[in-house]
Formats: sequence, structure tokens, C-alpha cells
Amino acid sequence: MKKILVLHGPNLNMLGQREPEVYGTLTLPELNECLISTGKELELDVTTIQSNLEGALIDALQESRDWAAGVVFNPGGYTHTSVALRDAVAAIEIPVIEVHMSNVYTREEFRHTSLIAPVAVGKITGFGWHSYVLGLHALAELLIK
Amino acid sequence: MKKILVLHGPNLNMLGQREPEVYGTLTLPELNECLISTGKELELDVTTIQSNLEGALIDALQESRDWAAGVVFNPGGYTHTSVALRDAVAAIEIPVIEVHMSNVYTREEFRHTSLIAPVAVGKITGFGWHSYVLGLHALAELLIK
Amino acid sequence: MKKILVLHGPNLNMLGQREPEVYGTLTLPELNECLISTGKELELDVTTIQSNLEGALIDALQESRDWAAGVVFNPGGYTHTSVALRDAVAAIEIPVIEVHMSNVYTREEFRHTSLIAPVAVGKITGFGWHSYVLGLHALAELLIK
Amino acid sequence: MKKILVLHGPNLNMLGQREPEVYGTLTLPELNECLISTGKELELDVTTIQSNLEGALIDALQESRDWAAGVVFNPGGYTHTSVALRDAVAAIEIPVIEVHMSNVYTREEFRHTSLIAPVAVGKITGFGWHSYVLGLHALAELLIK
Amino acid sequence: MKKILVLHGPNLNMLGQREPEVYGTLTLPELNECLISTGKELELDVTTIQSNLEGALIDALQESRDWAAGVVFNPGGYTHTSVALRDAVAAIEIPVIEVHMSNVYTREEFRHTSLIAPVAVGKITGFGWHSYVLGLHALAELLIK
Amino acid sequence: MKKILVLHGPNLNMLGQREPEVYGTLTLPELNECLISTGKELELDVTTIQSNLEGALIDALQESRDWAAGVVFNPGGYTHTSVALRDAVAAIEIPVIEVHMSNVYTREEFRHTSLIAPVAVGKITGFGWHSYVLGLHALAELLIK
Amino acid sequence: MKKILVLHGPNLNMLGQREPEVYGTLTLPELNECLISTGKELELDVTTIQSNLEGALIDALQESRDWAAGVVFNPGGYTHTSVALRDAVAAIEIPVIEVHMSNVYTREEFRHTSLIAPVAVGKITGFGWHSYVLGLHALAELLIK
Amino acid sequence: MKKILVLHGPNLNMLGQREPEVYGTLTLPELNECLISTGKELELDVTTIQSNLEGALIDALQESRDWAAGVVFNPGGYTHTSVALRDAVAAIEIPVIEVHMSNVYTREEFRHTSLIAPVAVGKITGFGWHSYVLGLHALAELLIK
Amino acid sequence: MKKILVLHGPNLNMLGQREPEVYGTLTLPELNECLISTGKELELDVTTIQSNLEGALIDALQESRDWAAGVVFNPGGYTHTSVALRDAVAAIEIPVIEVHMSNVYTREEFRHTSLIAPVAVGKITGFGWHSYVLGLHALAELLIK
Amino acid sequence: MKKILVLHGPNLNMLGQREPEVYGTLTLPELNECLISTGKELELDVTTIQSNLEGALIDALQESRDWAAGVVFNPGGYTHTSVALRDAVAAIEIPVIEVHMSNVYTREEFRHTSLIAPVAVGKITGFGWHSYVLGLHALAELLIK
Amino acid sequence: MKKILVLHGPNLNMLGQREPEVYGTLTLPELNECLISTGKELELDVTTIQSNLEGALIDALQESRDWAAGVVFNPGGYTHTSVALRDAVAAIEIPVIEVHMSNVYTREEFRHTSLIAPVAVGKITGFGWHSYVLGLHALAELLIK
Amino acid sequence: MKKILVLHGPNLNMLGQREPEVYGTLTLPELNECLISTGKELELDVTTIQSNLEGALIDALQESRDWAAGVVFNPGGYTHTSVALRDAVAAIEIPVIEVHMSNVYTREEFRHTSLIAPVAVGKITGFGWHSYVLGLHALAELLIK
Repeated sequence: MKKILVLHGPNLNMLGQREPEVYGTLTLPELNECLISTGKELELDVTTIQSNLEGALIDALQESRDWAAGVVFNPGGYTHTSVALRDAVAAIEIPVIEVHMSNVYTREEFRHTSLIAPVAVGKITGFGWHSYVLGLHALAELLIK
Repeated sequence: MKKILVLHGPNLNMLGQREPEVYGTLTLPELNECLISTGKELELDVTTIQSNLEGALIDALQESRDWAAGVVFNPGGYTHTSVALRDAVAAIEIPVIEVHMSNVYTREEFRHTSLIAPVAVGKITGFGWHSYVLGLHALAELLIK
Repeated sequence: MKKILVLHGPNLNMLGQREPEVYGTLTLPELNECLISTGKELELDVTTIQSNLEGALIDALQESRDWAAGVVFNPGGYTHTSVALRDAVAAIEIPVIEVHMSNVYTREEFRHTSLIAPVAVGKITGFGWHSYVLGLHALAELLIK
Repeated sequence: MKKILVLHGPNLNMLGQREPEVYGTLTLPELNECLISTGKELELDVTTIQSNLEGALIDALQESRDWAAGVVFNPGGYTHTSVALRDAVAAIEIPVIEVHMSNVYTREEFRHTSLIAPVAVGKITGFGWHSYVLGLHALAELLIK
Repeated sequence: MKKILVLHGPNLNMLGQREPEVYGTLTLPELNECLISTGKELELDVTTIQSNLEGALIDALQESRDWAAGVVFNPGGYTHTSVALRDAVAAIEIPVIEVHMSNVYTREEFRHTSLIAPVAVGKITGFGWHSYVLGLHALAELLIK
Repeated sequence: MKKILVLHGPNLNMLGQREPEVYGTLTLPELNECLISTGKELELDVTTIQSNLEGALIDALQESRDWAAGVVFNPGGYTHTSVALRDAVAAIEIPVIEVHMSNVYTREEFRHTSLIAPVAVGKITGFGWHSYVLGLHALAELLIK
Repeated sequence: MKKILVLHGPNLNMLGQREPEVYGTLTLPELNECLISTGKELELDVTTIQSNLEGALIDALQESRDWAAGVVFNPGGYTHTSVALRDAVAAIEIPVIEVHMSNVYTREEFRHTSLIAPVAVGKITGFGWHSYVLGLHALAELLIK
Repeated sequence: MKKILVLHGPNLNMLGQREPEVYGTLTLPELNECLISTGKELELDVTTIQSNLEGALIDALQESRDWAAGVVFNPGGYTHTSVALRDAVAAIEIPVIEVHMSNVYTREEFRHTSLIAPVAVGKITGFGWHSYVLGLHALAELLIK
Repeated sequence: MKKILVLHGPNLNMLGQREPEVYGTLTLPELNECLISTGKELELDVTTIQSNLEGALIDALQESRDWAAGVVFNPGGYTHTSVALRDAVAAIEIPVIEVHMSNVYTREEFRHTSLIAPVAVGKITGFGWHSYVLGLHALAELLIK
Repeated sequence: MKKILVLHGPNLNMLGQREPEVYGTLTLPELNECLISTGKELELDVTTIQSNLEGALIDALQESRDWAAGVVFNPGGYTHTSVALRDAVAAIEIPVIEVHMSNVYTREEFRHTSLIAPVAVGKITGFGWHSYVLGLHALAELLIK
Repeated sequence: MKKILVLHGPNLNMLGQREPEVYGTLTLPELNECLISTGKELELDVTTIQSNLEGALIDALQESRDWAAGVVFNPGGYTHTSVALRDAVAAIEIPVIEVHMSNVYTREEFRHTSLIAPVAVGKITGFGWHSYVLGLHALAELLIK
Repeated sequence: MKKILVLHGPNLNMLGQREPEVYGTLTLPELNECLISTGKELELDVTTIQSNLEGALIDALQESRDWAAGVVFNPGGYTHTSVALRDAVAAIEIPVIEVHMSNVYTREEFRHTSLIAPVAVGKITGFGWHSYVLGLHALAELLIK
């Protein structure tokens, strides 16, 4: 079974508590459980990490190179401003898929751009926590092809 | 079984012939067959339409309101410039999912913006023809929820 | 009696069905009837055309030159992007009046600009279907003067 | 009979004298007379005010709230720069219609934007002094509906 | 003899009638005749098509791939806005030369940019109908080299 | 006791009447009374002036130089556009504090910039009529230091 | 002797008191005296007006049309923002010369643009109060030529 | 007594040492002491935290939700670039007040914008360490109202 | 036979040596010979000049007015920045045609604009050294018409 | 008698020949004569230089430092683009006055900016060849003061 | 011997592993060794630190003030976005030299700007790991002068 | 010994005389001597050229190809505007290093960009005349590697 990192960026630890009308009522532990079991169906062994620290996310990406076959990454608020995270995604050679729960294009204009997208395989946005599930499907497809 | 429209915009009839290094070697009829059979697995009855005409795409969207439960839409080159298509997507009340085969964020800057995205449910980009498959998965999830 | 073309652009065939809180509940056939009868009061013989196709609208404008004394034109979503429609309006020598039902200045910023306005006689915006009626009044005045 | 304020902004006192090729030869007193008599036909009791002072126009708008049912307002050169006039229009609860005599879209680019339009009911531009007449028609329609 | 498509975009059917001070008095049929006979001198077999519809121009470009050795293309008002036409030009593998009758650089700023030019072989602008003749000369040179 | 000018810009005479959901229900005379009594607690002798005229506000600022030790100034809609008011603030040598009742950063983008702020001591925004009270506290601190 | 208006905009009444390192120590009455006597040497009968009110400056310009042969105008802080003053300058048919005491190009960027300059005869900037003197020389030359 | 968090962003630990002409000579421990005692007068129980790490500030904000009634926050250099901090401020439901010691509007242009301000209650800037004191006053008012 | 100046701007003396994949292997003397003989076929007497100095190119243009009937001009790197060359082209009354060897629209964005084009007759770009030949054809046509 | 350099930039040698409706019919030698004799009246010993070469103008400015008390400089087309000329003006310690014959603010937008103005004493524009005369007056005043 | 800090920003721990065609094959420990020995030749005692955390880099800079005479700093991806790092560089009084291994000007446009450069002594970019060596040379020169 | 060109752009002949607080008191001949002797230490045979003429600098670069192994180039004021110099640097195949004496990032914004940098090997800025010395070190390293 391929090992996969699901990496959650800043404030995603507040899932289920923060702005539920935007992000739903599922908490992060519940979401992670759900992603691990979806992973199993797709023959993917899912590990999850969350951090609010830009540098800790860079560390997690760099280390994933040694053990993971792919990454599903929600960079949260760092999506739009972090050249350092972009460099980390570009530096590791495994496929990274950018996901967002909300449809960023209906929100503030600074959320429309992404420094991560040009170095990721693809981007999935707008399907709530199901964006992660689609990201796992996409990785499954990529790693089997 | 829910009825679904898969709508292909301009130049997608050239799939498999045009820039295969970007778009792969699958032709449009082959892709459509594949989407119809994926649809069946997901209990979705897929109909496909392609047109190079902006107005014909508007017509197809307007008419889909009478028979379809959702749309997977690749607006191609009209994505970035067509206010009229955006208005059509906004006007029909069924969910529309925007998909792109290539990772538009690694291409010319005018391809990074989308007039459709803010009125679509979500956007999936970068997974080749598998972007459409993920779009069907997303619709399946949405229509069951 | 002077002959007048009332030309409706894309998605206006959905009037009364689409976003009624913005566009009201009057349907296009009802609106057309109302404009024909207002025309009669102003001694104007009104013909109406609607199309979702940019090229068909260009054709209609070009042909109107042979039979009409003026045009009331709602270019819809093409207002903001169509250089080709602008060229068609500039090419025919009869007066064209641009009308919009909604107050475009309270909506998305891309709706604030118009490629048509600089080659039209004038612009009327924000009065619901009554924008068309005011357009007919303006034409009546222009053609009598 | 409903009472209406027709409010003329800066330099409109020079009507008929200033750039007649743009604004025509009618003087302001002549225009006002004409608007009063058009008002009578529409069952509107028209009062006219002109001032070159931004603050005096704000005063006139604020006071109109106590006696008028609507305003036809040509903000002249303040259209493009006055946040204070915009706030005054937004603050009074009666409908305000923005009118311009010339087609502002064929003139300098700084005349294309309007701070007033987003808080007005609608905007009429390009029909010479007839723009005011159309504004009265629009108000008549609005106040009867 | 090599087969060549001369493709005329929107409003070029009005040649000779529309703004003669900009576009001259030659009509489209006269121009086409002239291009066919110039073609003969250069050993090129010229076929001409005109359409006001963006999608019909895309169709013509796609089909030309099967029979033509090169295209002289005046995209008219679509030059500045059509990503879909650009994609069609990029998708066919035969050389396309962009031509314009007027010097677009002395006109409105939105006419200065071209979405077609970066995927065309070259661009010729400003020589009236002679721009097409120079385009045929350029193709003759390209196809012989 | 130090003498202080509290200067209210355009439309603030409508306080309590205009958009109460933004500005609250306190009227200007009530606010002024409250500021005079707060002033007394802080050992400040508060005088209040309101005007809708840019030039009258300039006059008030220039004259305050002769009698006041500091100014709490809400420039209202002139904040964003008046170079002349900025010059007046810079020209007098007494400290001026800019205050706004609403959080301007949650409103239209043109309200985010201030021509006054760079020549004021500081800026307080978002606390309703309490912004003025904080302004008086700040002046008290400044004038005692 | 030709009659000339020297018109001073906002804050110029503070000359000699305000930022003397920028504007010098000469007061406005002293400057006016000096301009009147320079005028006499050039056979120009100089009248001077100062106001902080935009509308009062418009009034002064409009009225000057009846008695003056030319205007030397320092629009101060209104230079950069007043479309209404620009319209007033354009509306009167006598020559207007824009002058500034400081070199505006060494100050904040918003001082570099002028709405007045395109409708004035010319612009003189940077020579302290001598800018006015040069303006009178320029008018003398213009009115004699 | 209400519990309040005073949160200091990056480099504020250098207070009193760094650029004293901008920030004064008070050190951070001295400032904190002063804020705690001011808090007592206002019946607020003040706790202070400082960190140079963006993620640690996010953590502090998230945790404050469990124990604090409000936050006075100086985001320092993160003010202008941190979408993640903005999201954290928006996610917690207690009032946050943005404060700055210097008048940011007299400094580099990139300091004029704030990503935090639109999700804060209000913003206070320019009063040296007294900005914090005014922030406590504002919270006291808010939490009592 | 009409006399023609072919004017080469900076770095064109390196033709055949510099970036041959962009500019081909023909040297400047070879190109000039070729243009002189093409000129003869078209009954044009071609003189060629090259200089790296902006001022020397201005001199050559000014002097050509006395002896040449037209100019084919490749302004090289000065195309995008030289107002002085533009003024020289505008000042002489003979027709100037701008040519470029490479398709400038596929290169860096600063090469897309031209200060020369608006004052030239037309512009030919993208056909290698054949761009010059087309320029001579265009001049032949212009001078005979 | 103070020595003065009048320095003419590119294309000014064509004065009287080039676009006489903009620049008048006076030739450069005639203008120079006129400036020399005006100089005498003002007790200034005027020397004139013209060059089309940017570098030669830099040389002239550098050398003037050794013999001239001031410079009247018309940088022509280099005004808007030459950082090198700006550096030369800044490097010499004698006063430089920028003059233009036409009102640059009524011409193309790229003529509105000046790299020279911020390092010159002042700028005079719009008075035809009389701009130079006013420049001499300004220098006379400066050098006597 | 002067003590020097060489500070490496985010992702530089991946040196030799990441994009070797851009950054070469030297690893970070190897580079550090090399810098320490170069330091010895220049009589500089070099200490090296690397961190992916913005806040940890701020800490390292703040602390260096107590022990180091200068800093060679490669801020990596934080160069373009971190106001907080800029503030830290400005706050410590020892000289900081910004270095980059790649020529940032041949890469994406967002890498061209630097928030650090204006507060650093100077910037060295494009020489691979030799950029650091040049940085040490520059510091040696600065600290001896 | 490798031959090296040190090329000085416009105004550098004024070194030691011009703005000594920015550029120091060393004259150009003194600097050149110093660079020649530094060259000797590095086994580089240094030749120096200075010119104020853009075209002469292009000539020097083109000719250096025949005799030099590398160039240290200070393009002065042409750095920011000269496409022609950029083309010359790109055309010669020997390494060119861009140097500036001052830290351009602390000066006017138009000095922050460089057209030369993307075609140079690297850029060194801010170390006074020592920037040239570092440039020679960098070349020595490059030519030995």
C-alpha cells in the first residue's frame, strides 16, 4: 500500500468550530479518520499532519520525501503568500495536490491566487471536506498510472 | 439514475490530435465513452455535448435545466473572457463543476483567471482527462448528500 | 411610422425565470409585447430579436441598416468583452442606444465597463424593463429632432 | 402631485454659453422651464436648484428628504471625485437618478467612473438636455409603481 | 499549386460600406477576387471564407488543417479577446499569418494587443487591403523555403 | 483647561438619521454634548463644529490655530480625496487626530486610503461614537506629556 | 491696460506662516502688492482673489470671463482632484496659466498630476512666488501677440 | 474582572532598543507592567504574550478563545502579509483590536495596508505605547456595553 | 527609380553572429546586398545604414527627408523606449515602415509595445530577414499608388 | 555678465520645419538669435547647443559646470526616459530649468512624466518659443537673488 | 578575529538535493565548511545557522547583535514577502549582506523584489555558492575600513 | 593572464566630484588604477573604458567579444531603460557581471529594476567602489572554474 501524507495548514485545527457556514461541522479528527478510511478503500496508507507554523509545514514536506508517495496539501492562509512553501513543494520530487474546502473564487480577491498551484500537479477547490477525498482519488489514479 | 450533462467547450473536439504533450492522446469520442461508463458506476446517466460556439454552449446550459441534475463543464478558451457563459451558469439552478485538463497555473497568465469559477460549485484542474472523472465523483457526492 | 429594432443579447430569453430578484418576473415575450405597444404610442414600429450568439447579434445589427431607423440594444454579457459587436455598432450609421435592466454599477466590477457605450448615442441603466421603454422614448426624440 | 428636485451641479449655470458643440445652446433657465412643464405633463411638481459648491449640493440633497419624492441629479464634475456627495445620496431615502447630457464614455477616461451611480437608482447619459426629461419619465414610473 | 485559406473575421463583410476613411472603398468580393488573382501569380490557390461567428471561424481553422498549406487570417474584433481562436490557431499545425488593414496602433488602446500574434508566424498591419497581399507573399516565401 | 476643537465633516449632521445600522442612533447634538462632558473629565474645553463644505472645514482648521491646543477631526467623505484639507492640517502646527466611527476597512475600497492620516498624529477607526472619546483621551495624553 | 485676474486657491492665505521652508516668508498681501506693481510694468491691471472654497473659485473663474483678459491661477490642493475646476477653466474662453510655487515633482506623487494643465495654456512650477511673476510675463506676451 | 490578552508580534521584544526615535525608549517588560496596571484601573485582567513566530501568534489567538474576553493585538510586520493570522482573528469569536505604535501612514507604502483590520473591531495607530492604552479603553467600553 | 533608405538599429551589425536560432545565419552585408537587388526588381534604389547610436539614427532619419521617398526601419532595442526616435519619424514627411525579424510577441513582454508604430505607416514582424523584403514590397505599393 | 547655456535636445534642429501647427515657424537659428538678444537685456551671456545624441547632451551638461552659471534645458524626447540625463543634471551643481514649447499635458500620456523635473529647479511648459524666454527670466531672477 | 553569522533561510538545508541544475551539488554541511575556511583566510570567525522558520530566523538575527560583527544572509523564499524579517534586519545595528545563489532576475517575477535589500548594506546574486564567498569578502572589507 | 573589460556607463567620469556622500571621493582614474592592480593579484589583465553614449557602450561590448574573457559592467542610468544594451550583453557570449556602487534599493523606485540583470551572470550592488572589486573576484572564480 502506497503511503500518503495529508497535510493541513494554519487554522484547520479549528475545523468544525470556526465559521461552520463556510467550513461545515466536521472536526479535524473526524475528517482525518474519514480520510484514513477512504485511503484504505483506494489502497492508500494515509498519515495526517496539521500545523499553524509555516516552517513546520516546510519540514513536514521535506521529510515526506523519505517515506511518502504523494501529498494532499491544504496550505490554508499560506497559499497566497508563501514563497518558501512553494520552494519546498518544488524541491521534493513526489506529487503534491492542492486542495481547498471553500470555493476560494467567491471570497476575497487575495484568495484567488496561489503560489503553490504552479508547482503542484493540480488543484481542487470548493467541495467542502470532499475536496480532500477527491484529492486522494486523484493521487490513487496518478500513482497507479 | 440522475441525468448529467458533460459539456465540452471550444477546440476540445481536437483532443488527441492537438498538442498531445499537453492534452494526451485520447480522442474526444474515446473520452466520452469512458465518462459514460464511469457515470454508470456512479449511478449517473451521462450525456455529452461539444461546441465551438459560445452561444451554442449557452443554449446547452439553458436547456440542461429541464432535464439534467448537474453539469461537468470544461469551458476551454471561453473560461477567461465570457461574461455571457457566466451569466448562463448563474441563471440555471443546477450545480455546475468547472474542470480543466491541464494545470492552467503553469501556462500563460491569462489562463489563471476564470469568470466561471465564482458561479460554479467548485473547480478541478490539472489531472488530464481524469479531471472529468473527478468532476463526476464530485457531482455524485453532491447529488446524494 | 419609423421602424425600430429592439435587440436582446445573451440569456435575456430567460427573463422572468432567471434571478427574479434582479430582473423581475416579466418574461421576454411579455416584455416584447409591452415594447411593441409602447412603440405604437410613440409612433414607432418595433421589431424584436433575441440571440445568445455574438455573431447572430452582429448579423442582426448589420441587416438592420437596411430597414430600421434606430436600435435599442441590450448587449447583456457581451457588453464588456465584445470588440466585434462594438465594430458592428460603429459600422452601421443608424443610432443605437445601449440599455441595461439592472444597475450594473452595484454589481461585479467587470460589469462597469462597456465597449459599446463609446459608439452608442447614450446609455440607460438601472430601471428594470422600464430601461427599454426609456430607450424608445430617447429614440423617438432623436428621430423627430 | 409628487414634488421632485432637479439638482444641477457645478458649471451647469453656464449652459448655452459653454462649449455649445458639446452641450447645445439652451440656457439653464430655459432648460428649467422646459423641465417644469414636462413635469406637469407627468404629474410631477418640479423644483430646480443649481450650485457650484459641493457642500451646497450636499445641503440641498439632505433637505430634499423633507419635501421631495425623488431627485434628478446631474453632479457634473463632482461625479467622479466626491465621496461626500455619494454619502449624501446614500443617506437620504428617496430615489435619486443620475443624469449627464454628454455621452461621458466618448470623453476623457476620468469621466467614465461615477461614485454616485452605485447609490443611485439608475443612470442616463448621452441625450443632451433630453437626459433630464428621461430622468423625469423614470421617476414618474418609479413613484407610480 | 499550394492551397491557401484567406479567413476574414467579423464585420469584414461590410468592407467598402463601413468607415471608408479607415478601410477604403473596395468591397469584400472585390478584395477576394484580387487576392485569388495575386495568389495565382505566386502559385497559390486561394480560397476565402468570412464569418461573424467566433465558433464558425474556429471550425474553418480546424478544417483547413485537412486541405490547406497555410492561412492568412484577419481576426477583426476577435483579435483582442478570443482565447478560443488562439487555441485553434495553436492546435492546427499549418502556418497562420495575422493581418490587419488599419494601423491598429493609431486606434484605441484595446486594439494594440493581440491574443493571436504569439501563436502566429508573424503579423502585418497598416497597409489597407495590401496587408493581405503582403500576407500572401509571406506565405509564398515560407512554403517554398 | 486646554481648548480643543472637535471638527465634524460632511453628512455627520445626519447622525442618528442616516444608516443607523452603520452609525448608531445617537444624533450629532447628543454626541457633542457627550464629548463636551467627557472633555471636562479630561480637563479639556471642547468646542464642536460641523460643516458640509470643504472650504469651511479648511477655514475652521486655519482659525483653530489661534485658539485651540489640538483637534479631533472626522473628515468624512473628504478623507479620501481632499488634498486641500491635508494641506490645511499640515499647515497648522497643533496636533490633529483623525477619527472614523465605522471600521472603514470593511467598507468600499476607496474608503481604505486617507490623505489626512500621513499629516495627522494618529488615526482611530471602528469604535462608533466612542472613536471620538478615544481621540479626546489621546489628545489629553499628548498635551500633558 | 488689460485686466488680469490672479486667483489663489486653498491655504494660500496662510502664505508666510505655513511651512516657510517650502513657501518662503512673504505673506499673501505682500505678494499681491508685488504682483500688482509687476503688472503695471507689463501694462496689466491685476486684481487678486483668494478662496478656500472650490465653488467660490469656480464662481471667480466664471465671472472673470466678463471683465478679464487672462488668469494666472494657483489651484493649490484642488489641482490634482477637481474635475469641476477643470470644467470651469475649459468653459471660459480667456487664457488661464497654471502656476505653483514649489517644485511639485520633488513632493508626494499625488502632486505630480494636474487636472487643470490640459485645459490651461501652460504651466510654471518651482520658482517660489516668482512663478506668479513669470505667469504675468507669459500673459503679457500672449495678449500682445 | 474580564480577562484580556495583549498580544505583541515580531520584533516587539526589541522595544526600547530598536530605532528609539520611532518607538521610544520604553522596554517591553516596562510596557507590559504599565498595561497591566492600566488594565486594573479599567477592571481588566491583562495577560501579555510576545512571539516572533507567525504560527505561535496563531496558537495564542486560538487559545485565547477559551479564556479571554478580548484581545489587543499589535501584529507588527505580519500585519501586511499574513492571511493565516487574519483567518485566526476571524475564527475566534472574541473582539480583537489592532494597534500600532508608529503612524504607519508616514512610513513605507507596504505598511499602509492591513490584512487584519477588516476582521478586527477597529484600528488605533500613531500614539506610541499609548496606542495600547487606548486599545484597552476601547475594549473596556466594548465589553461593558 | 525612387530612392529608399533601409535603416538598421542597434546590434543588427551582429546579424548572423548573434543568437542564430532567433535571427538566422545571414550577415548584415549579405542581407543588405539582397535588399538592394530586391529593390531593383521593384524599381527602388536602396541605400542601407546601420548604427548603434540613437542620435545617429535620428540624424539619418532627418537627412533622409532630403533624398529618400521612403524608409524601411528596424529600430531594434530602441523600438520600445525611444520617444526621440518617434519624434524624428513623425517629423519627416516621408512614409516609414517598421520591421522586425523575430515575432516580438513570443518574446519578453517589454518587446510587445512600440513607440514607433503609431507614427509609422505599418508594421511587419516575424518573417526573419524576409520582413525587410515585405517592407520593400509595401513601400513599392505605397509610392506607386 | 553671467554665462548661461541654452541646451536643445533631439529633433529641435528641425524647428520651423517639423509640425509647424505644434511648434511654430521659427527656425532654431532664429530662436537662438532671439534668446541671445533677450539674454543681453537680462545681463545674461547666452550660449546655445543642440544635439540629437543623449551622450552628447550629457557631455554638454557636465562641461557647463566649468563655465556656466545656469542652464535652460529642453530635453525633448529624452525627458521621459533618460535616467542618465537626470543623473547628469543632478551631478552638476548649477541650476537647471526644464522648458517645453508645447503643452505636454494635451499630448500623449507618456509625455506627461519627466525624469528631469525632480532634479531641476522648476519647469515651464506650453508657451511656444516663449517658454525659453521665461526660462531666461527665471534664471536671471535666481542668479541675482 | 571578527565573529560573523552566515544565516541560511528556508529550504537551504536541501542544498545539493533540490534542483541541482539551479543550485549545484554541494550540500549545506559542505558549503558551511567551505565558508568557515574562507572566513579564516579573511580573518573572520564564521558561525552558520539554518532554519525553515521565519520566527527562528528573526530570533537568530536579534541574538547576533550580541556577539557578531556582521551577517551574510540568504533569506530564501522569505526575501520577497517578510516584513518581519526586514524589521529584524533594520533593528540590529550590525551590517547585513543579502546573498542569493541563483540569478533571481532570470526566474519568476515575484523573485525580483526584495523587502530585505533596502535595509541591507548590499546584495549579491547569481554566483552559486560563490555568492556567499563574495559576501564574506564584502564584510571583510566593510569591517576593516 | 585573462583579459577583462571594466566598462563604466554614463556620468561615472564624474566620480569623486558628483554627490560624494553617495559615491565617495575616489576619482575614476584612481578607481581604474586600483582595479588594474586588483586584477593583477587575481591574474586578470584589466582594461577600462567609460562613455556617456549608449551606442558607444554597445560598440565596446560588441568589440570585447574579440579580445576579452569577461566584463564587469556598471551601466549607470542606462540600467533601467536600455533594451539595446541588454541585447548587446545577450549577443556576446562572454560572461558579464552587473555592478552598482550605491544600494539602488534605497533610492528612487525606477532604480530598482534592471534590464541588464536577466542576461548577466549576476549582480552586485551597494558596496561603493568595492562592488567592482567583488565583480573581479566573481569573474576570476568563473573563469577558473
